[in-house]
Amino acid sequence: MNIVDLIIKKRDGGKLTKEEIDFFVNGVTDSSIPDYQVSAMLMAIYFQNLDNEETSELTLAMAHSGSTFDLSSIEGIKVDKHSTGGVADTTTLILAPLVASCGVPVVKMSGRGLGFSGGTLDKLESIPGFRIDVSEEQALEYAKTSNIVLMSQTDNLTPADKKLYALRDVTGTVENIPLISGSIMSKKIAAGADAIVLDVKCGSGAFMKDYDSAVALAKTMADIGKSVGREVTAVISGMDQPLGMNIGNSLEVIEAMEILKGNVGGDLLEVALTLGAYMLISAKTADSVEDGKAKLMENIKNGKGIAKFRELLIQQGGNPDIIDDYSLLPLSPEKEVVCAEEDGYVYSMNTAEIGRASLETGAGRASKADSIDFGAGIIMKVRIGDTVKKGDAIAEVYSAAKEKCLSAANYLKGAVSIKEEKPEDVRLILDIIK
Amino acid sequence: MNIVDLIIKKRDGGKLTKEEIDFFVNGVTDSSIPDYQVSAMLMAIYFQNLDNEETSELTLAMAHSGSTFDLSSIEGIKVDKHSTGGVADTTTLILAPLVASCGVPVVKMSGRGLGFSGGTLDKLESIPGFRIDVSEEQALEYAKTSNIVLMSQTDNLTPADKKLYALRDVTGTVENIPLISGSIMSKKIAAGADAIVLDVKCGSGAFMKDYDSAVALAKTMADIGKSVGREVTAVISGMDQPLGMNIGNSLEVIEAMEILKGNVGGDLLEVALTLGAYMLISAKTADSVEDGKAKLMENIKNGKGIAKFRELLIQQGGNPDIIDDYSLLPLSPEKEVVCAEEDGYVYSMNTAEIGRASLETGAGRASKADSIDFGAGIIMKVRIGDTVKKGDAIAEVYSAAKEKCLSAANYLKGAVSIKEEKPEDVRLILDIIK
Repeated sequence: MNIVDLIIKKRDGGKLTKEEIDFFVNGVTDSSIPDYQVSAMLMAIYFQNLDNEETSELTLAMAHSGSTFDLSSIEGIKVDKHSTGGVADTTTLILAPLVASCGVPVVKMSGRGLGFSGGTLDKLESIPGFRIDVSEEQALEYAKTSNIVLMSQTDNLTPADKKLYALRDVTGTVENIPLISGSIMSKKIAAGADAIVLDVKCGSGAFMKDYDSAVALAKTMADIGKSVGREVTAVISGMDQPLGMNIGNSLEVIEAMEILKGNVGGDLLEVALTLGAYMLISAKTADSVEDGKAKLMENIKNGKGIAKFRELLIQQGGNPDIIDDYSLLPLSPEKEVVCAEEDGYVYSMNTAEIGRASLETGAGRASKADSIDFGAGIIMKVRIGDTVKKGDAIAEVYSAAKEKCLSAANYLKGAVSIKEEKPEDVRLILDIIK
Repeated sequence: MNIVDLIIKKRDGGKLTKEEIDFFVNGVTDSSIPDYQVSAMLMAIYFQNLDNEETSELTLAMAHSGSTFDLSSIEGIKVDKHSTGGVADTTTLILAPLVASCGVPVVKMSGRGLGFSGGTLDKLESIPGFRIDVSEEQALEYAKTSNIVLMSQTDNLTPADKKLYALRDVTGTVENIPLISGSIMSKKIAAGADAIVLDVKCGSGAFMKDYDSAVALAKTMADIGKSVGREVTAVISGMDQPLGMNIGNSLEVIEAMEILKGNVGGDLLEVALTLGAYMLISAKTADSVEDGKAKLMENIKNGKGIAKFRELLIQQGGNPDIIDDYSLLPLSPEKEVVCAEEDGYVYSMNTAEIGRASLETGAGRASKADSIDFGAGIIMKVRIGDTVKKGDAIAEVYSAAKEKCLSAANYLKGAVSIKEEKPEDVRLILDIIK
């Protein structure tokens, strides 16, 4: 088999066979195919796409390109969760303890964030002492004793995906649904869960700006799941404004704890409950979404959720006192309040620009090598549809340096549009794809 | 400027500015843009194309990526010639001495062949003693004394094109008219001629299989020429059968000498005269194609053409005695005659397969590292439209080893189709594009 022939085949719209895809992925993994041929193939795929069968074969080949995590020694149906990422989207920190507290094991490998704020790992690392590097043996042990592990991906998980993703990032071949789906699903399959609940974000702050492409991505991932015998449920949720009120790392940990304590509600809780409910359904622990949400809410009210979070912190070395004293978490010293410049309704938000503001504070990474300021970020004070008067605070910005605060505030001003006209209601849960 | 942004711009169908193209070509030349980004850009160009302006800018940037050859010290209008390549296509060896013998300086840098037979350089090297490595100073000196130099490209000519071509070859991005045009024209512009006559081949043995794509290629090259102030004339000529009768290196040198001596006519002579006539027209030495052809034919008849060839051989160290004694040229020892297996008309030829047969004899290179057997090749005995009887020779195969002869003979049998039906006339000169 010759890689040039395969590039030309795909370039001309041909369908790659399982053997050809395996040859490609093996060549990527062992570097026998040079990067310049890999990137030419990726661009050919960008233009000609992969059909469902090719996408499944690519996903499986990537999933098996390194070691896989065997969860079979843990009893019950193991359910994983993935979000395509949005602003103030910290559902994992809420639903993982809640679902675990309902008796369903949650063994979740997460990644670091690139963009407006950190990923789950970065948020966890903002908690003093918290260890994200957990060996596979240790993870199985934790799962058996506490039902919950949140950890970084093991080193040799899906090396083909790591290489392909790094190349896509620098060759203009990120935005392709089969490649995105394969990247996400290969990691989830290698991570060993029986069922997967996906949160596909859609809107101005998401990778998928419109409903149709979000649905296409969700369907592709569900189809991959079917073809490899893993149950996939995809929730399409809105990202036309930040999901929670806090954007940052320690700030998002605080909001998650407030929700687990039952002090705070809103869209972030609603999405966390919806995703959690589908996780319970997949694990045969709930009969319906209503039933699942009720069980999760019950464990907020009775304190089992926050207790599970405490157990997680203790298990992985995090200081559990943060739960009762948020001042033990980092908070950046400089503060700037962004105020409304006119009376009216909060009409719309450019959520990507709010994410950009968060990046300016130091809460996110512009490139992989950047370090994160765990105490930086933004607390939003308004949601779409709220009425404001000139001078009302619409957001608070926290950063290590005054000029970063000012720059972030500037992005925020441009991102929140206030009009006399009342906006339409913002839809939160747009669709469920199975 | 960021190369990822430029790749995405082209991927999305955008038009690259002169500054962006210069940034790309400079990055290719000094290797500051890694190959994997260059190949992604090439594949994006493959799908989205370059418009005339972008193609001209790319060509100019490549032409100036290394040293250029300054021919201004040679008097008169300097005319270069390029063929897109075909089987038994040795027009340069015929027209260069003929045109030079009409008083027009021919300073021609050539390349080596990849494929069915050698390039002009390989053919010249089949002549015992002939030196193709000529310095620029020496070339100018030769041009002033003899009006003719045939030489290899100087080392630092169009390094950007060299790199891009090498990458295109291994990334499935060869077949793109703007990239092909830019590659050819950048070398011709860097080689310094005032006017360029192109022979764009079209048919089963050519890179361009159909008339429309041959015309598109010719027009693109003519447009580049216009935009950089070089007169370009493109002749579209047929390649539905080998142009001459001999395929190989020394074998093609022999056929060229036979034509220069006036012993042989046919399609190869006709195309050489047509291209040569347009060279004379560009050099203001002929008024019309008829006038140009007549002047060239005159120098065949009066012996000035073959005398100029002799002068070229002596000038560059080649043994001039080959002109009178072809046995001084290499000829491979093993011979196989391919015979017609039925009576009928020679109806059609798959010229690419005949080229493949030539490659089997050892006359060509499958990859750059391969060495060429100068004495190997094929002598065709028939042309389309000829009648043959079962058992008549249709080709003679020469090679160093019997099994190579047999393999080549096998390809030849499949490549020549004999039918009862009389074929249509094969057109030789299809169009002239200026």
